[in-house]
Amino acid sequence: DFLHSLENDVKPAFGSSSEEFIKYIANGVINWGSPVQRVLEDGDLLISQARVSDRTPLVTVCLEGPAGAGKTALAAQIAKNSEFPFVKICSPENMIGFHEAAKCQQIKKIFDDAYKSPLSCVIVDDIERLLDYVPIGPRFSNLVLQALLVLMKKVPPHGHKLLVISTTTRKDVLQEMELLNVFNNTIHVSSISNGEQFMSVVENLDVFTAEETQMLSRYTLGKSLWIGIKKVMVLIEMVRQIEGREKINKLVSLLEEEANLQTVDVLN
Amino acid sequence: DFLHSLENDVKPAFGSSSEEFIKYIANGVINWGSPVQRVLEDGDLLISQARVSDRTPLVTVCLEGPAGAGKTALAAQIAKNSEFPFVKICSPENMIGFHEAAKCQQIKKIFDDAYKSPLSCVIVDDIERLLDYVPIGPRFSNLVLQALLVLMKKVPPHGHKLLVISTTTRKDVLQEMELLNVFNNTIHVSSISNGEQFMSVVENLDVFTAEETQMLSRYTLGKSLWIGIKKVMVLIEMVRQIEGREKINKLVSLLEEEANLQTVDVLN
Amino acid sequence: DFLHSLENDVKPAFGSSSEEFIKYIANGVINWGSPVQRVLEDGDLLISQARVSDRTPLVTVCLEGPAGAGKTALAAQIAKNSEFPFVKICSPENMIGFHEAAKCQQIKKIFDDAYKSPLSCVIVDDIERLLDYVPIGPRFSNLVLQALLVLMKKVPPHGHKLLVISTTTRKDVLQEMELLNVFNNTIHVSSISNGEQFMSVVENLDVFTAEETQMLSRYTLGKSLWIGIKKVMVLIEMVRQIEGREKINKLVSLLEEEANLQTVDVLN
Amino acid sequence: DFLHSLENDVKPAFGSSSEEFIKYIANGVINWGSPVQRVLEDGDLLISQARVSDRTPLVTVCLEGPAGAGKTALAAQIAKNSEFPFVKICSPENMIGFHEAAKCQQIKKIFDDAYKSPLSCVIVDDIERLLDYVPIGPRFSNLVLQALLVLMKKVPPHGHKLLVISTTTRKDVLQEMELLNVFNNTIHVSSISNGEQFMSVVENLDVFTAEETQMLSRYTLGKSLWIGIKKVMVLIEMVRQIEGREKINKLVSLLEEEANLQTVDVLN
Amino acid sequence: DFLHSLENDVKPAFGSSSEEFIKYIANGVINWGSPVQRVLEDGDLLISQARVSDRTPLVTVCLEGPAGAGKTALAAQIAKNSEFPFVKICSPENMIGFHEAAKCQQIKKIFDDAYKSPLSCVIVDDIERLLDYVPIGPRFSNLVLQALLVLMKKVPPHGHKLLVISTTTRKDVLQEMELLNVFNNTIHVSSISNGEQFMSVVENLDVFTAEETQMLSRYTLGKSLWIGIKKVMVLIEMVRQIEGREKINKLVSLLEEEANLQTVDVLN
Amino acid sequence: DFLHSLENDVKPAFGSSSEEFIKYIANGVINWGSPVQRVLEDGDLLISQARVSDRTPLVTVCLEGPAGAGKTALAAQIAKNSEFPFVKICSPENMIGFHEAAKCQQIKKIFDDAYKSPLSCVIVDDIERLLDYVPIGPRFSNLVLQALLVLMKKVPPHGHKLLVISTTTRKDVLQEMELLNVFNNTIHVSSISNGEQFMSVVENLDVFTAEETQMLSRYTLGKSLWIGIKKVMVLIEMVRQIEGREKINKLVSLLEEEANLQTVDVLN
Ligand SMILES: Nc1ncnc2c1ncn2[C@@H]1O[C@H](COP(=O)(O)OP(=O)(O)OP(=O)(O)O)[C@@H](O)[C@H]1O
Ligand SMILES: Nc1ncnc2c1ncn2[C@@H]1O[C@H](COP(=O)(O)OP(=O)(O)OP(=O)(O)O)[C@@H](O)[C@H]1O
Ligand SMILES: Nc1ncnc2c1ncn2[C@@H]1O[C@H](COP(=O)(O)OP(=O)(O)OP(=O)(O)O)[C@@H](O)[C@H]1O
Ligand SMILES: Nc1ncnc2c1ncn2[C@@H]1O[C@H](COP(=O)(O)OP(=O)(O)OP(=O)(O)O)[C@@H](O)[C@H]1O
Ligand SMILES: Nc1ncnc2c1ncn2[C@@H]1O[C@H](COP(=O)(O)OP(=O)(O)OP(=O)(O)O)[C@@H](O)[C@H]1O
Ligand SMILES: Nc1ncnc2c1ncn2[C@@H]1O[C@H](COP(=O)(O)OP(=O)(O)OP(=O)(O)O)[C@@H](O)[C@H]1O
Ligand SMILES: [Mg+2]
Ligand SMILES: [Mg+2]
Ligand SMILES: [Mg+2]
Ligand SMILES: [Mg+2]
Ligand SMILES: [Mg+2]
Ligand SMILES: [Mg+2]
Repeated sequence: DFLHSLENDVKPAFGSSSEEFIKYIANGVINWGSPVQRVLEDGDLLISQARVSDRTPLVTVCLEGPAGAGKTALAAQIAKNSEFPFVKICSPENMIGFHEAAKCQQIKKIFDDAYKSPLSCVIVDDIERLLDYVPIGPRFSNLVLQALLVLMKKVPPHGHKLLVISTTTRKDVLQEMELLNVFNNTIHVSSISNGEQFMSVVENLDVFTAEETQMLSRYTLGKSLWIGIKKVMVLIEMVRQIEGREKINKLVSLLEEEANLQTVDVLN
Repeated sequence: DFLHSLENDVKPAFGSSSEEFIKYIANGVINWGSPVQRVLEDGDLLISQARVSDRTPLVTVCLEGPAGAGKTALAAQIAKNSEFPFVKICSPENMIGFHEAAKCQQIKKIFDDAYKSPLSCVIVDDIERLLDYVPIGPRFSNLVLQALLVLMKKVPPHGHKLLVISTTTRKDVLQEMELLNVFNNTIHVSSISNGEQFMSVVENLDVFTAEETQMLSRYTLGKSLWIGIKKVMVLIEMVRQIEGREKINKLVSLLEEEANLQTVDVLN
Repeated sequence: DFLHSLENDVKPAFGSSSEEFIKYIANGVINWGSPVQRVLEDGDLLISQARVSDRTPLVTVCLEGPAGAGKTALAAQIAKNSEFPFVKICSPENMIGFHEAAKCQQIKKIFDDAYKSPLSCVIVDDIERLLDYVPIGPRFSNLVLQALLVLMKKVPPHGHKLLVISTTTRKDVLQEMELLNVFNNTIHVSSISNGEQFMSVVENLDVFTAEETQMLSRYTLGKSLWIGIKKVMVLIEMVRQIEGREKINKLVSLLEEEANLQTVDVLN
Repeated sequence: DFLHSLENDVKPAFGSSSEEFIKYIANGVINWGSPVQRVLEDGDLLISQARVSDRTPLVTVCLEGPAGAGKTALAAQIAKNSEFPFVKICSPENMIGFHEAAKCQQIKKIFDDAYKSPLSCVIVDDIERLLDYVPIGPRFSNLVLQALLVLMKKVPPHGHKLLVISTTTRKDVLQEMELLNVFNNTIHVSSISNGEQFMSVVENLDVFTAEETQMLSRYTLGKSLWIGIKKVMVLIEMVRQIEGREKINKLVSLLEEEANLQTVDVLN
Repeated sequence: DFLHSLENDVKPAFGSSSEEFIKYIANGVINWGSPVQRVLEDGDLLISQARVSDRTPLVTVCLEGPAGAGKTALAAQIAKNSEFPFVKICSPENMIGFHEAAKCQQIKKIFDDAYKSPLSCVIVDDIERLLDYVPIGPRFSNLVLQALLVLMKKVPPHGHKLLVISTTTRKDVLQEMELLNVFNNTIHVSSISNGEQFMSVVENLDVFTAEETQMLSRYTLGKSLWIGIKKVMVLIEMVRQIEGREKINKLVSLLEEEANLQTVDVLN
Repeated sequence: DFLHSLENDVKPAFGSSSEEFIKYIANGVINWGSPVQRVLEDGDLLISQARVSDRTPLVTVCLEGPAGAGKTALAAQIAKNSEFPFVKICSPENMIGFHEAAKCQQIKKIFDDAYKSPLSCVIVDDIERLLDYVPIGPRFSNLVLQALLVLMKKVPPHGHKLLVISTTTRKDVLQEMELLNVFNNTIHVSSISNGEQFMSVVENLDVFTAEETQMLSRYTLGKSLWIGIKKVMVLIEMVRQIEGREKINKLVSLLEEEANLQTVDVLN
């Protein structure tokens, strides 16, 4: 379960370059509510399916959700929880300025390496960036798309197992490309949607005084809001620089703007 | 006939690389009903036509049907049943990241090799992937398409015979491309469409206890459902990890979701 | 005339590679009716025009008709009848996977060779395949198209004569491309359109017993049907494998399906 | 004037490769009526303007008209009449299978050579073929188009004169491309449009007996018809092979089909 | 604050090539009103966030506004105010005629260099020119776009901080490309919108006599107008050449034309 | 002023290749009326602005007007009047058949050379040809466009001044491309629009006798017509070859056709 996975954080036996994916959870994964819990539990289930089944040696899952919802961090967390000897992230950050052929080669290389280990996990991060997708046109790399369409169906060699975790903000586009339904599973990653979840993050980060925290609670508890965990981090870091009472006021006004928080009733 | 072809499974005299296609029937081919039987019988007919006719030394067939219906496995099974000395699969899995010219070369090479054997069988798997087809646009490799359009009509050298078995999920697209009607024959591969067929698979796989099997029968027999054999495998492997009564409940609920099984009457 | 041309089949004086076009009449050309007769007679006329006229040293003709109507075989037969010292086929089968520049080079090479012989015949087979034509878009090689547009108008060197025979199933497309009207002549190649023509083919092939033939006549004579000679060959070779009465029944039912033969009245 | 230009046919002082354009008038230029006369007279005017004017050292003209109207032959005739020391034809026949860059190079080379001679004439034949134009799309080589757009305005070096004669069947397309109005002049080349003009050609060719000629006159004199001089040559060469009375009958029926000749009244 | 940043103009410790961005403020930054003040204050806030926050080591901002509003100069001024040891401008002026791959390489190089310094600032100037954007089509370099989409999200190595300041006149286009919302912040840069702001610039430039200035004030104070600071510079430099009374008259009439200044009431 | 600039025609101190632009005024620049005068005066103003202003070291102007209006000649005249030590023309005539990358290189080279001289003038002639613009599509070189968009804004190195004079017939297209408004100034070059202006050209050219000139005046004075100076040259050179009275008649009838001159009243 979730707590176990966070506690079990002993360094596993994988080589150094394989640890790159760890940097995507440098800020940690905060258990701010049941949506997070569920994603990690589903992840546990897929890990054990990949580990034991001989008839389905390839298990694939797509984490989809809005920008900044925490998809990449959760993918990295599941990969870490798997404790598989081979874990590798296939990220657009390592392919900046690559032409599609070079991208394909690098993606293929990661999968070929994974096939060599008996128990592997590959994170395919930000699929629309790997695909060079832009809605104008739309344009995208068909070479990369076709490679992914085949790789997501290609069974590893006899006796080998592979878990593939992908992330995307554009489930709709993947559907149109007939890529979404080649995944065995799809898991939704959601934004923070109410004050309780938000305060859970705030308390966890430990950046405000007790008084500030209480004040913030008055504005947010019992309210609905809509904001990704990544943006929460940015806003809190912004207001941290502000001294005194203004700090919380500024944060609340930013939440009104960016997270659609309604505070009229609080002020009256 | 079908039973005969499954029993006759003595290793034929072909070289090692030629055996690659065997891996696509690693999970076996379960005779879950007459649709399977018919495909294999039609396959037998085409095998003998290819073997004997001098006027039509090229026999081509397209296996078309929904995703996961078992097209690739059935193509491999027919190829195996032919016992032809040369059997080769032309699969997108071996061409990941290839540019269209390289794809053409590889496809051409396989056919050129086949022309050298007096009796050959070539499987052209997942044509839309060989064509790099994507519905957005649509886009596809015209170079590969033109190569296939010519290869499907090109008669092998005098005295040589060739059986070509293709698979596709996009019969409609092949029609638009004027590729479908260059095949001599088209065979439909269908999904599992009722509880009897489904239970036939379940019993064959031998993963549930007698009690579990009986319980599953109550939910499915006499019902219509709609699911490819490939998905059946995935779902059963998923629930295998679950302990106790929940196992069958989970499977039934997955079938409701993914196979449109109706179970209201059973529960009342 | 036609009979003469079939009888006159003495091997002419051309080199071995030039004989490649002969393989396209390996199954022979059956005189199943006046449409065939007319095509060959028109061919004879063009042969003699090419041979004698100094003012029109380039004679070009396009054989157009439905898929499998026998266009390639008839083009090869006319070329053979010409008994010209140089006969060469320019066929997409020899250009599989070629990029358009390579196609152009090969096409140009064949014409350049032809210009060297005082009396030449070039078959340009399956123009839409040489053009890499696909109706989606549509797409095609403009480089090849422009080469053909020029070659079909380019007069051979002084004192040299050239007969060009092209084939196509897409007269409409050639028209749109302004390629059709650069040909001096267009000849229609038609499908078999009635039972008499069909039986003429059957009798010529000599694959059924007298009884079977008579039975088949009952179903087809006096009926209209619509089928290319190429498909007739395939269907007959298919049913040949069947034993007994079923053979003719199967053939008739295939003709109902594929050739729109109406047999209700026969059965009543 | 016209007669003078035909009589003056003494070989001028230009090198052998420059004489290539002569082959396009191998069949001669028949003075079948005033339209021909006018084109040649206009040509004479342009020749002398190019020869004498210092303020307009570049004279350009576009001969436009229907397919087969005789544009290329008339351009060649004007070039010959100029008796300029440098005459060169820029023809798509010499650029088959060339990519656009190679075409540009060759076109540019011809103009650069022309700039070196004090008095030059360049024929730019069949512009739409040089442009690789096809109405589907439409597609064409913009590289070649831009080269022509610049070359048609580029003044030769001080003291040098250049006459450019282009031909096209697609005046409309050149207009859309803004190429037509960079020419100083446009001259229309028309088809043969009545029986008198047609008979003038027939008599000039001297292929029929006096009786045949008279018979043909009865069908055509006083009638309107519409046919290019090039097609007239083809039809006459076709019927020449026919013996006896049929010869003229066939020709007349071909004229009805291809030249829209009305003969009902003659027959009644 | 603003005055402080202008006063503090001591040369910081960065290498020579890093100082290139200074040339974009060669004409200085005039504090013509609160819009300028606000942009620089927001800049100060972002500078300190980039300097101190560990959780958000990447701070990105997009300066957007009309052509000539002073975006580039303000970006350079903020960069200068940061006093960061590494400041580099990524400008289309250094990539003229580059193909998209070369552009990507150069952009990537600048970011890679920035990652090496513990505290860096990168100006990404004129994004639509880096993207080769043109509204016809529209066309743009998807390779550069994808590189920017990834770079704007890529966190620098552990312990390193990066401030990215971009400029654009096409906020709408960046939105469509899904590039705008990968920036943490967006700041609007506005044109001069009234006579007071305009006169503030005029006085600062010190090009007119006291009398001229007073005359200009009569025409502009209390009026709305709409003009970028860059255009103001051009107009004033134009009229400077004019002698006498005409100087101010010409400037006013240019402002009527180009800045929509209304002067009817003044003249009456 | 204008007369001064024409008289001042002493050869300035620039190197030989720099003098290439002189050839575009080989036929001289005739002062046929106030439109010409105005263009040259505006040019003088820009020359002195470029020479003296430090705040705007880059002065750019676009001469736009109908085909043949004299744009290139006027641009060359302004450049000559500047007497700047560096004057260079960037003309499509020197880039025939160049691919866009080569064009960019050559354009960039000219500007880089210009930046080296303290006082430079670059003529960018016929922008739509440099852009390979064609209205079908439309198509154009985005690489060249982007290069121009950046070059027209790029300030020369400190202490250097640059005057850029461009010409175009397609102001509308440049606007759509967002290229027009990167120029500091736009000047309209107009066609000859009345008989007085036309006769001013005629008298200046000195090709007709006094009588001929008087006759021509009768037809044109007081009339409106519409014709570019370049076409006037062509028509006059054409009719010069004609002997006697016909000369003026022909010219008048050409003016009716090409310049929309109305002469009905004269003849009555
Ligand atoms: N419960 C959580 N789930 C996900 N991320 C969390 C959680 N708690 C804290 N984080 C932190 O929040 C940030 C989430 O950012 P991340 O890049 O994973 O989002 P994303 O959805 O992938 O964004 P994008 O759509 O831009 O790719 C990370 O820094 C992560 O460490
Ligand atoms: N009767 C059967 N027909 C086909 N496959 C069967 C049958 N019985 C069992 N199988 C197994 O089911 C799986 C079918 O998967 P297969 O890849 O052939 O499906 P597919 O239709 O080609 O899928 P896709 O549309 O994704 O290409 C294989 O693992 C095969 O061994
Ligand atoms: N009268 C005939 N005309 C043409 N072909 C005949 C005739 N009689 C027998 N044949 C045989 O029928 C076949 C005709 O096939 P062919 O490839 O020439 O048809 P096609 O129209 O070119 O087909 P496609 O449209 O596929 O190119 C050949 O095998 C040929 O030998
Ligand atoms: N008066 C004439 N004008 C032109 N051609 C003539 C004339 N009299 C005879 N001819 C002959 O007619 C033929 C005209 O063909 P030509 O290729 O010049 O036509 P074209 O209009 O260029 O055809 P296309 O449109 O196919 O390019 C030539 O063989 C030429 O010698
Ligand atoms: N307050 C100010 N803000 C910005 N620029 C100023 C200011 N005061 C003076 N300037 C000067 O005005 C000019 C502004 O030009 P700049 O190139 O920065 O504008 P821009 O908005 O980037 O233009 P473009 O849209 O063409 O890229 C510079 O020369 C700058 O030195
Ligand atoms: N007042 C004048 N203005 C411009 N050109 C003149 C003038 N007087 C005489 N000329 C001559 O007229 C011709 C004008 O041609 P020019 O090539 O400059 O026109 P253009 O507008 O650039 O044409 P295009 O649109 O084809 O580029 C030149 O030969 C020039 O010497
Ligand atoms: Mg992410
Ligand atoms: Mg398959
Ligand atoms: Mg054929
Ligand atoms: Mg021609
Ligand atoms: Mg700027
Ligand atoms: Mg010009």
